Amino acid sequence: MRIGIIGAGALGLYYGAMLQRAGNEVHFLLRRDFAAISTEGLKVFSINGDFSLPRINGYQTATKIGQVDLILVGLKTFANQCLIELVRPLIGRETAILTLQNGLGNEDLLVAAFGAGRVLGGIAFLCSNRGKPGEVHHLGEGRIRLGESTGGPSERCQRLAELFSAAGVPCEASADLTRIRWEKLVWNIPFNGLCALTGKTVTDLLQHRPSRQLVASMMGEVISAANRQKIETRINAEPFISRMLEMSDAMTGYQPSMMIDRIEGRPLELEAIYAIPLARAAAAGSPMPQVDMLYRLLSVGEPQI
Amino acid sequence: MRIGIIGAGALGLYYGAMLQRAGNEVHFLLRRDFAAISTEGLKVFSINGDFSLPRINGYQTATKIGQVDLILVGLKTFANQCLIELVRPLIGRETAILTLQNGLGNEDLLVAAFGAGRVLGGIAFLCSNRGKPGEVHHLGEGRIRLGESTGGPSERCQRLAELFSAAGVPCEASADLTRIRWEKLVWNIPFNGLCALTGKTVTDLLQHRPSRQLVASMMGEVISAANRQKIETRINAEPFISRMLEMSDAMTGYQPSMMIDRIEGRPLELEAIYAIPLARAAAAGSPMPQVDMLYRLLSVGEPQI
Repeated sequence: MRIGIIGAGALGLYYGAMLQRAGNEVHFLLRRDFAAISTEGLKVFSINGDFSLPRINGYQTATKIGQVDLILVGLKTFANQCLIELVRPLIGRETAILTLQNGLGNEDLLVAAFGAGRVLGGIAFLCSNRGKPGEVHHLGEGRIRLGESTGGPSERCQRLAELFSAAGVPCEASADLTRIRWEKLVWNIPFNGLCALTGKTVTDLLQHRPSRQLVASMMGEVISAANRQKIETRINAEPFISRMLEMSDAMTGYQPSMMIDRIEGRPLELEAIYAIPLARAAAAGSPMPQVDMLYRLLSVGEPQI
Repeated sequence: MRIGIIGAGALGLYYGAMLQRAGNEVHFLLRRDFAAISTEGLKVFSINGDFSLPRINGYQTATKIGQVDLILVGLKTFANQCLIELVRPLIGRETAILTLQNGLGNEDLLVAAFGAGRVLGGIAFLCSNRGKPGEVHHLGEGRIRLGESTGGPSERCQRLAELFSAAGVPCEASADLTRIRWEKLVWNIPFNGLCALTGKTVTDLLQHRPSRQLVASMMGEVISAANRQKIETRINAEPFISRMLEMSDAMTGYQPSMMIDRIEGRPLELEAIYAIPLARAAAAGSPMPQVDMLYRLLSVGEPQI
């Protein structure tokens, strides 16, 4: 399969490398890593075993990639104003677009430009970061859940899930993309923002009772809002929150991506993880006051969207 | 008048110096500044004109000060576990104790130990900070409002107000200490905590619309709780908030004391400014959810009280 990777940060580089190692023809749109990867290839340092890909198809402009069968989008959402122009040159008659970006609104942008029939979304449970140019570090997890932007089961979804699974990336097709996106937000909304705001890790927040209670309470707000969206089955708040906290207790010292973005002086993914979910929650009659306060505090000093 | 200063930080040093310059016999309990002040005296750099006091009565232990007519308390509230033992040696038959500390609960500690008849409280509107040892910087404002811990007007209150006014510190006696303490909290609760948490100044928060709205909304929570306390006249929320915001707009780049405490690695005054007001608000049936969230986030990583 001919695959184009748009947004080759830690996520795009890792999944692209796994897909290429499994025999797919992968093309990477590169920015920071172009020079290093062109001369030295890509090195993957992974908890599942390191490997190198000495030859990578790397490009500095999307037009040079040409049409592909699958476009994998890993762009940071704060760069979404470039999303459509980066994706467009790769679109052929049968091209599918899978966005693994954070939060809400990404499929909508793609659907508006290219039609719902082309667009899938997915949730990546991946702990990874970029090292120096030409390197990517896979620190934990890696599985993907994906679904059609229109919802419902599809053969294409199954095929893509098999593509990833065959490449060593556990992947599950879901018939309810809205639900899995909101499920992920139950984790992302409290932890990404609170860690970025306070400079404390997931573990710091969970080991201090007042902030642990706050995390749980914010998860409750997100679940209430999720259950007012068009999802097939409600999320059962209490066991879901318990499971999330338990899973997070095992992430010793973990720094969510937004915390790293702030530490390293990058913009934050506020639109996708906060503004759009807040708007959809309010529209569904289930406002999220604690999430709203967090968003207001995160946005001080950020570039206006 | 023989005056003892307990807690000679920026506030204690400044007011003590003003009172001494006006001819009072002032005794300072010193810690950090003892050596510098003993050899070189105290230098005051003030927007109203600099001055020096070459001879200061400085002590390293409270017992050496002996009995005084007035004890002025400027101790940081996170050191309140030492408050009673520091004050006790200065108490004579007629001694009055005036605490200018932040937040709530300080008069109660003093009343429990020494009786309500001795205790007054006050609010200082003072922008000051310590420079190097032996120096204090007066950057703005300086006025005081004070009242009896028991409430109601008193001759003693009037005399103390005149004492300060005569020393160049505008001072007003109030018959309702509870109300003026809560009025001050309307400013302190949002700005101290939000600035400490975000690392942004008062001006940063006010110039960004979402955080300005949050500040106003938190002020509203504090006023609602204040109006449920035993105060003589209600605070009229809308004009009070407008006036507070307008006054704060003029504080260009101001860093509240709690923000400086956090930057310099000191503990925060969470008990007096958050925990006790939250408990009194909840007890009065007017919980403050946004204030509660702020308190939970500020407390992560703080020493447990």
